Amino acid sequence: MPSTALLTDHYELTMVRAALRSGTAFRRSVFDLFPRRLPAGRRYGVVAGVGRALDAIENFRFGAEELDFLRAHDIVDDELGEWLANYRFTGDIWGYPEGEIYFPGSPLMVVEGSFAECVVLETVLLSIYNYDSAVASAASRMVAMAQGRPCIEMGSRRTNEGSAVAAARAAYVAGFGSTSNLEAGRRYGVPTAGTAAHSFTLLHDNEEEAFKAQLATLGENTTLLVDTYDVEEAVRTGVRLTERRLGAIRLDSGDLPEMSKWVRQLLDSLGATETRIIVTSDLDEWQLAALAGAPVDGYGVGTSLVTGSGHPTCGFVYKLVSRADSDADDATMVPVAKKSKNKATVGGRKFALRRLDEKGKAEAEVIGVGTPPVGDHNDRPLLVPLVTAGEIVGREPLAESRERHLSSFAELPLAARKMSRGEALVPTLYLDEDH
Amino acid sequence: MPSTALLTDHYELTMVRAALRSGTAFRRSVFDLFPRRLPAGRRYGVVAGVGRALDAIENFRFGAEELDFLRAHDIVDDELGEWLANYRFTGDIWGYPEGEIYFPGSPLMVVEGSFAECVVLETVLLSIYNYDSAVASAASRMVAMAQGRPCIEMGSRRTNEGSAVAAARAAYVAGFGSTSNLEAGRRYGVPTAGTAAHSFTLLHDNEEEAFKAQLATLGENTTLLVDTYDVEEAVRTGVRLTERRLGAIRLDSGDLPEMSKWVRQLLDSLGATETRIIVTSDLDEWQLAALAGAPVDGYGVGTSLVTGSGHPTCGFVYKLVSRADSDADDATMVPVAKKSKNKATVGGRKFALRRLDEKGKAEAEVIGVGTPPVGDHNDRPLLVPLVTAGEIVGREPLAESRERHLSSFAELPLAARKMSRGEALVPTLYLDEDH
Repeated sequence: MPSTALLTDHYELTMVRAALRSGTAFRRSVFDLFPRRLPAGRRYGVVAGVGRALDAIENFRFGAEELDFLRAHDIVDDELGEWLANYRFTGDIWGYPEGEIYFPGSPLMVVEGSFAECVVLETVLLSIYNYDSAVASAASRMVAMAQGRPCIEMGSRRTNEGSAVAAARAAYVAGFGSTSNLEAGRRYGVPTAGTAAHSFTLLHDNEEEAFKAQLATLGENTTLLVDTYDVEEAVRTGVRLTERRLGAIRLDSGDLPEMSKWVRQLLDSLGATETRIIVTSDLDEWQLAALAGAPVDGYGVGTSLVTGSGHPTCGFVYKLVSRADSDADDATMVPVAKKSKNKATVGGRKFALRRLDEKGKAEAEVIGVGTPPVGDHNDRPLLVPLVTAGEIVGREPLAESRERHLSSFAELPLAARKMSRGEALVPTLYLDEDH
Repeated sequence: MPSTALLTDHYELTMVRAALRSGTAFRRSVFDLFPRRLPAGRRYGVVAGVGRALDAIENFRFGAEELDFLRAHDIVDDELGEWLANYRFTGDIWGYPEGEIYFPGSPLMVVEGSFAECVVLETVLLSIYNYDSAVASAASRMVAMAQGRPCIEMGSRRTNEGSAVAAARAAYVAGFGSTSNLEAGRRYGVPTAGTAAHSFTLLHDNEEEAFKAQLATLGENTTLLVDTYDVEEAVRTGVRLTERRLGAIRLDSGDLPEMSKWVRQLLDSLGATETRIIVTSDLDEWQLAALAGAPVDGYGVGTSLVTGSGHPTCGFVYKLVSRADSDADDATMVPVAKKSKNKATVGGRKFALRRLDEKGKAEAEVIGVGTPPVGDHNDRPLLVPLVTAGEIVGREPLAESRERHLSSFAELPLAARKMSRGEALVPTLYLDEDH
């Protein structure tokens, strides 16, 4: 993996340069990565990008190429250049594990170390969390609306080529079954899928030739795209060529609820009762909800998924919340916060708990500073160690993240399964220090 | 640059696999990359990503790592694997050069070669064009509203880490002056900028210590962030420490039109008449328009820019529009098009012209198949060679793309400088074959 060190805002380095001069660069510090709020109308969010962020931290190294650029542009001086050349993160990070649900204020990542080693990670961590979680949050809603029907992520072409790989991974974390993106398959093991586009049919002298070629190569269980010319004729051709054993047909245009009913009847009348119907035409979670009663067997989702279905970023921020009160070795940690009106942050190192009722349903996000409360509540701790003394300890297979998302989603109130806009599903409770 | 070959949808390869079997894989083909429409309310778009697309084509190579993955998952068979191992694009590509304006239907890229060599490029070309052009289109509107005041791109943290680099480049093409993103500086030579965040002030025992450290390191011409605690006190401190020679102050919160007036008066009253005011708080093109009358000297724009200001993708498609009518060497090219209702495409290889009136203002986008018309019209050809017989010929310095955007924007009707929603600024005229 190439260095991630320059996926960084210019000012992160100039801050460290100035802090080296003022002698404050190595004050012990705690940064929180968190959402101030959910996107308007959204009722929960889904954490994704954790594993990618850990990879990015591991590869946050300044080599000759990076340092030559920084020195040539006078972004770093000799002192900073030397420090960067030896950079590796040596601190501790706790965080919500991948696939977990979050609410306003949830401390998704708590990063502790020297100011300098923590602050330089700000940009790349936010980039990864903001995008991956935006996709996972949209994906989770879509999966809920699909009600068990498989969803295929196929939005690569509608977003940046790097985003496309991340989106495929994030959608998989949140319950999608596969992706069209080959690099997501290679890099992260996400199952890949796909058969043919309209151009394949148009390439051939006629539709039957195209179908024959596809069936001969990919087998009868393949999915034939039937809306290039005339749907009825295409369906009849596909059923005839496979002697009713055609795996699936794909509809990519038209009034999908009506079309799918009509095509189901046609398939059944031809004896192709096992042939599935896949639909793929600018779907989003509302379209999936509208298709719940239609005879559809699977969905391909593109644009709306990879753009976060109206919310392409989560608005996560990364804020210094606590630091040593002096440069001495035995300095005390003190909370710090910006005083501006509309951007207050809560100081200190946090804990976070999902409070569950007697039925195991989430009823509050409980956040506080210091030691978590002990008592009668059924509180599930949310923060796990991700990095300990610089060593990455939070990696896990994507299968575990997928499982976690399922169980965390199952804890949500029933309204999670509705598309209606509203406030966060549960309130965020901030406990004061003497809870 | 690493291989771009797997930034590709699964079905591109299975189509080629089936076309190899049916003997149609090497039929000469023309694909168009184009927008069916502009995003709702937008009146023009800006092409960006051309240079990145050419890099992606050059690095579209299947090495052992890629082929091992594809074979292990039975996505390719031996025949296709062998073909991919030797893949390099040998055809021709024409396109709108970078920075050019576009309208509905503009053939942004015309790709000609064998079906197989053209179709596999679909996903990565669309990914690059769809995202980069979304950012450039938003950036151009922001630059227009900034009315000559410099704009800094600082949205890296709000989008995928790869998108962030592309966004910085695209915004620069469309007129932004600099970026916070260091990798965009290193890779593309985009000027980078930045000074300090709130965390830097909070790190120090008090604001004055923080300002002293920044001034000592970055000089008096630096920009001090003044809204961590109390703006008035911060401004007074900054002016005092620099003996009125402070370069700039930055406001990142509050009612910016009011705040900027008040801070301007304060600075002037303190004798710091040369100190500039930079504002940076979730700005978009409407906010910039609202700030036109305020005493602001520069803008930092983040979230809305990197997410395309409400339109994070352009909806470009890549369609087979023409192909050889047989497998013979002397086959004739015939137009092809999908017959579905709402997705008609125009067949054949296109030309594209910007028709200008006697004052040099754009009055139509003229698109046709075959030979462009000759006559009295003042028609500016829009397509330039990007790849000729597999050789990349369309690379240019970003400075040229920036110049082109300026001159292309200057041709637009005056409404281009307004934020009002509407139809495309000029109509798209499709000429028939015997124009």
